[in-house]
This record gives sequence, structure tokens and C-alpha cells, in this order.
Amino acid sequence: MSLRLEKIYARLEQENLDGLIVSSPANISYLVEFKSRDSYLLVSRKKNVYFTDSRYIEEAKENFNLKTFPGLKANSRRIFNSIKGNLKETFVLRKTNGSVFKLIAGSCIELGLGRIGFEERYLPFAEYKKIKEGLKKKAIFIPIHNLIEELRQIKEPHELEGIREAIRITSKALEFIKNFIKPGQRELEVVAELARFIRYQGAENEAFDIIVASGPNSSFPHHCSSQRKLKNNEPVLIDIGVEYKGYKSDLTRVFFLGKIDILKQRIYNIVLEAQNRAIKIIKQGCLINEVDKASRQFIREKGYADFFGHNLGHGIGLEVHELPTIGACEEVALEAGMVFSVEPAIYLPGKFGIRIEDLVLVTKKGCEVISKWPCQ
Amino acid sequence: MSLRLEKIYARLEQENLDGLIVSSPANISYLVEFKSRDSYLLVSRKKNVYFTDSRYIEEAKENFNLKTFPGLKANSRRIFNSIKGNLKETFVLRKTNGSVFKLIAGSCIELGLGRIGFEERYLPFAEYKKIKEGLKKKAIFIPIHNLIEELRQIKEPHELEGIREAIRITSKALEFIKNFIKPGQRELEVVAELARFIRYQGAENEAFDIIVASGPNSSFPHHCSSQRKLKNNEPVLIDIGVEYKGYKSDLTRVFFLGKIDILKQRIYNIVLEAQNRAIKIIKQGCLINEVDKASRQFIREKGYADFFGHNLGHGIGLEVHELPTIGACEEVALEAGMVFSVEPAIYLPGKFGIRIEDLVLVTKKGCEVISKWPCQ
Repeated sequence: MSLRLEKIYARLEQENLDGLIVSSPANISYLVEFKSRDSYLLVSRKKNVYFTDSRYIEEAKENFNLKTFPGLKANSRRIFNSIKGNLKETFVLRKTNGSVFKLIAGSCIELGLGRIGFEERYLPFAEYKKIKEGLKKKAIFIPIHNLIEELRQIKEPHELEGIREAIRITSKALEFIKNFIKPGQRELEVVAELARFIRYQGAENEAFDIIVASGPNSSFPHHCSSQRKLKNNEPVLIDIGVEYKGYKSDLTRVFFLGKIDILKQRIYNIVLEAQNRAIKIIKQGCLINEVDKASRQFIREKGYADFFGHNLGHGIGLEVHELPTIGACEEVALEAGMVFSVEPAIYLPGKFGIRIEDLVLVTKKGCEVISKWPCQ
Repeated sequence: MSLRLEKIYARLEQENLDGLIVSSPANISYLVEFKSRDSYLLVSRKKNVYFTDSRYIEEAKENFNLKTFPGLKANSRRIFNSIKGNLKETFVLRKTNGSVFKLIAGSCIELGLGRIGFEERYLPFAEYKKIKEGLKKKAIFIPIHNLIEELRQIKEPHELEGIREAIRITSKALEFIKNFIKPGQRELEVVAELARFIRYQGAENEAFDIIVASGPNSSFPHHCSSQRKLKNNEPVLIDIGVEYKGYKSDLTRVFFLGKIDILKQRIYNIVLEAQNRAIKIIKQGCLINEVDKASRQFIREKGYADFFGHNLGHGIGLEVHELPTIGACEEVALEAGMVFSVEPAIYLPGKFGIRIEDLVLVTKKGCEVISKWPCQ
């Protein structure tokens, strides 16, 4: 029995639920242990049913086969539906043709599930309505919040390996691009080089749209890389993450072309010190809002509180943004095994912005900064 | 007054609605006429309110300024909120800090809107619940389906320009990669080259994850490009789209390395003929299911009906997949100005797959195949 499923079953019992309809792709991927797309998963002690359509069914069969029988060749034509035996973790695969929502509701009824949870953040109202109608009042349909997300916060060793490799590729890309950038290049040309480089290094994908923000564009926290040309004596903010075996990275560095003026240097030093102050106090048991405060307070003392609007950081793993949220309103304690970003910033509208983002792993006695490449 | 807004107001009146909460990023972008991210839009004759947070607020101000006052310099620090005058299309900008949903609900109450629509496909249940709570029974909250999407189906001239340019870049990338691919290269290395190439050609982004599927991987309709190496005497299926000024393209070609065996050639010819049969009958007034049938019937006659599971095509524009859906159950008529893909396919599990995808523009008398590069 998969330990992850066992934990979910236990949580379902705590919540007095007979089953859970999982619609978040990352949550499904977490439970089936391969990258799942355009699918739904019904989890229950009675049976776990994976729903997908003709576009993904063959891929799903292979993935389930490989997982269940690692010795089986990838091209084996064995049909997963016919697999029987005592494998408790068996997922039943259902190909949808027409309404997946009717099929999901029908499966719930067939299995006699009376109280069914759904992921309220990941089910659009239209889908909620269709499943609910399909249940024909034979079951109660209950919104659930962050049930699987909370489990995903604590990373297992092989998950950490994935994240570390994603970070290694990202650091290498930043090192490469530091030497590559020159005045006259367009932001999107720099993105082009990064997009190419990471894939030759083994990344499967970008984790999100790569941000290359030059000069005043760096004052937009989530700038859309543009046709603007890099100029001398300007900062170039680069925010990049990659995907490796489904696991994500996310790092931000600011490079300077030519000279750095006094204001930019001053702001850079404030942001860097703000980051250090947070990193210093991170350890198991520390309250999350205290971590946010350590950075934010320092920025406030320096007079820039109004120019740092977003949270200090976010968890990362199968998704770029996942739990824990590192913000001023989070009054829960950090746990060993959590991985998140620490990314204080100061954005001066119309002028420039500085953000420095690293990833840390919480340990019992402190934290490990996983993104080691200094670049500062 | 923006013609698009005027049409929406008229539709709202037909539906007996006082306002609409727009949560689909593409629908918001369509109405504000710039690429909108992480935002919500309340549309009503009384006032249009755009909600976003600190990460996007400066970008939004600039975009609204540029749109409203094209002469204004991008870096002008003019605050949008203070803009007054007779501009009926003015959008009020609200920076969210804390719950955007309370703020949206509050705005609805302030404006005295009694019947408020929301986009049921683009509002997760959790958000629906929060806004509904915020309305405190002072307004009725009504699910709406495809209201803006239906308007977006008919492309305006400048939208067609964007799509044509996205297609031009994509065709050029396919021409480039046709000469680049060789046995021994990994699928992800080919993706790397394409990802780089399109940005030097002026694309802002990939429209979706580029698919490079070699040999048996081509039998997965939506293959995840992998570390597999290209081999001689195998097909390489490439499905690529780019984004240009927010508009998307989407083309699929299959290249052969070395020799093509008889079966592959036969399947290729069937798919190509299936595509031609659909393209021949496309024109204003033709029923969509007839278009799907023209391709599917031919594939059925040849004995491969079971190996073509997905729809024949999909609309494209601000999104890669939008209305109209070109499928067997769509009993509505085509209209001039619609743009969609025609992509019949045959997937032989474990062996190989062939898909040929082009984009067409419906005209009064027929259709224009916008993706002209033959590559066949």
C-alpha cells in the first residue's frame, strides 16, 4: 500500500468522508506518482479510479504499468484494466468518452460512497454542478480545502532529489546567462537562450514563464519579458525556474550591466540583508509570520515598506507555488522537510526593482539554503 | 465606447443581468485589450472595475494609461484612479490587499447591482462561495456559460493579423527544424532549439508545451517531450504554437527520418486526405458536425475509426483552445470570421501516430488555410 494513499485514507476518516474527488493535477500526480494531465481521480478505501480521455489513456496505461510492474517494458501492450491480483494500491483506469462528470458521479454511486469530498479550489463551479447533479442526492458532496496540499508540504527524500536537480540546472543557467548578457540584446532573446540552455541540461520544461526584466521593467514584480533592449548601467532581473521529473525550482537574481549607482547598490544591500535576516531564524517550530516579519521589518526600518507588497515566499515542489505560504498572516509553525522560497524585494515604480530569491529546506536546527550559487 | 463592451452590455441585458464578474484571463484580456494576469473584472453599465494585487498593479496602470491615452509615455507616473472625464470606457482600477473576493462583492453592493453573473467555467467553487457570502443576500449570483467566449469566436481584423503573424513564426520554426533534426538528438533538445528560435523571430512565448514525439511516442496524442533519442526510419511528430501580441498559433507536422515504410506512408496519406475532405466543405453556414464527419467518415472507411479519438479541431485566438469546438456533437453553423484547427489523426498504440494540423479562417464562400507552409 502506498504510504501517501494510506495517509489520505486516514485523513478522509478524520473528516468523516468515504471518498474524495481529486481534480488538482499536482495532487493527482502526487498520488499516482507520475505526471498526470487532464484527468480526475476518485480516491476511496474501496477503490481508486483514474479518469482520463483518449488523448491520455495510452500514456496513463503505460505509467501505471511501469509503476506497478517496474520490470515491464514500456511498450508492453498489457491493458491495465485487466490487471488483477492483490495489489491494494491498484488504480482502476476509466476512459472517458462524453461527460467525465457523469462517469465520476456514477462511480461514486456504484461504490456506495455516501459522503464525498471535492477540492474546492480546483473544481470550477460548472464541474461542481455537473457532478452534484450526477450524484442524484444519493451522496453528500462536501468542499474540502488543502487536504492533500498539506501532506505535500513535507518533502520525501526522492522529492528533495528532484528539487535539488531542478535547482542545479537553474543555477547553471544563471551562471551561463550572467556571462551572456550584453547591452543591445532584447529581453526575449535572453529568455530564448535560457529556454534552450535548461533543456540541454536535462530540464523537461520551464517551471513558469521566464522573467527577464531590464531597467524600469524590473520594477514590475511579474514582468512579461518584452522586446525591450538591455542597456548599459541598468539592472537586469532574471526570475527562472525549471521542471525536473515533475519537480520545480524558482530563483531570482539581479545582474548589473556597466556601473551600479549608489541608490541601486543601497537597495540591493537592503534586500540582501532582509533575506539574510529571514534565513537566519528559519527552523522547525519557528512561526511563519515571524519569518516574513524578519525581512519585512528590516525593509520597513529602511523606509521601503510600501515598495514590498507581496509575501516573502511560497512553498515549492510539484507546483511552483504551493504550501506553505510565507506571509504576514500565517500563524503556523514551520516543520522540518518544508521547502520554500525566501524572496524579499523592493520595487520603485518607474525606476527599477530588486528581488533576491533563494530556496531553503527547513531542518530541525535551522535551514539549508539549497540554491547555493552565490551570484551576489 | 469600446464596441466589445457595448456588445457585452447588450448580452447582459438579454440575460437580465446587471453585471458580470469575469474571471477568465482571456476574457478579461479581450475586454481590457491588453494581456491581463491574476485579475478579476466586474463589468456593468454603471462602472467597470478591474481588481488586481500589488504584483500587477503598476503594469495595469501603464496598460490602461497607454490604452486610454496612447500619447502618454509608458513611464508616466500618472495614477489611473485619478483619471476623470467623459471617457465612458474608463475602467476603475482597484488594488486588492487581502481578500479580492470581499472587495468584488463589496463593489457589486456599492454599485447596487441586483443580478450578477459569474463565469461558471472559470470560478472555482471556493471563490464562488466567498463572493456569494460577500454579497450577503443583497444580490442574486447567477452562473453564466460562454457569454464572452461566443463573441470571441468571430475575429476582428487586428486579431487576424496577430494570428497570422503567430502562424508565420511557427511555419518558419517548422522549416528550420525540418533541416535541423537528425538521429541521436533527444526530443527535448529539439524542443530547446524550437523554444529559442521562435523568440528570436518575435514570439513572446510558446502557446503550449511544444510536443516533439519520436517513433512510438508519436502514438500519444499529447506526448510529453522526453529524453528519448530520435532514430532513423522513424516519424517525428512536432506540434508547436507560439504567442504573438497575445494571439496563438497551433500547427502539427510529421517528419520522417530516413525511409518511410508502406504502413506509415499509407496512414499519412489517409490523414492528409481526411484533412482535405474537411477543408473542402468548410464555409459559412456549414454545420460543424458535418466538418468533423467529413474527416472522421473517411478515416472510418479506411478502417481506422478506433484510432482517432479526439475532436477534429478547436477555435484559436487569445487561447489555444477556444470556441468553436469542431466535434461530432456540435450542431451549430460556422460563421465567417471563425478561426480553428483542422487536425485529423490516427494513433496506433505502441507503434506510431500521424496528425496533421492546420488553421483555417471561415469565409462566406469557403475557407482560407492560413498556415500555408506545405511541408507535406
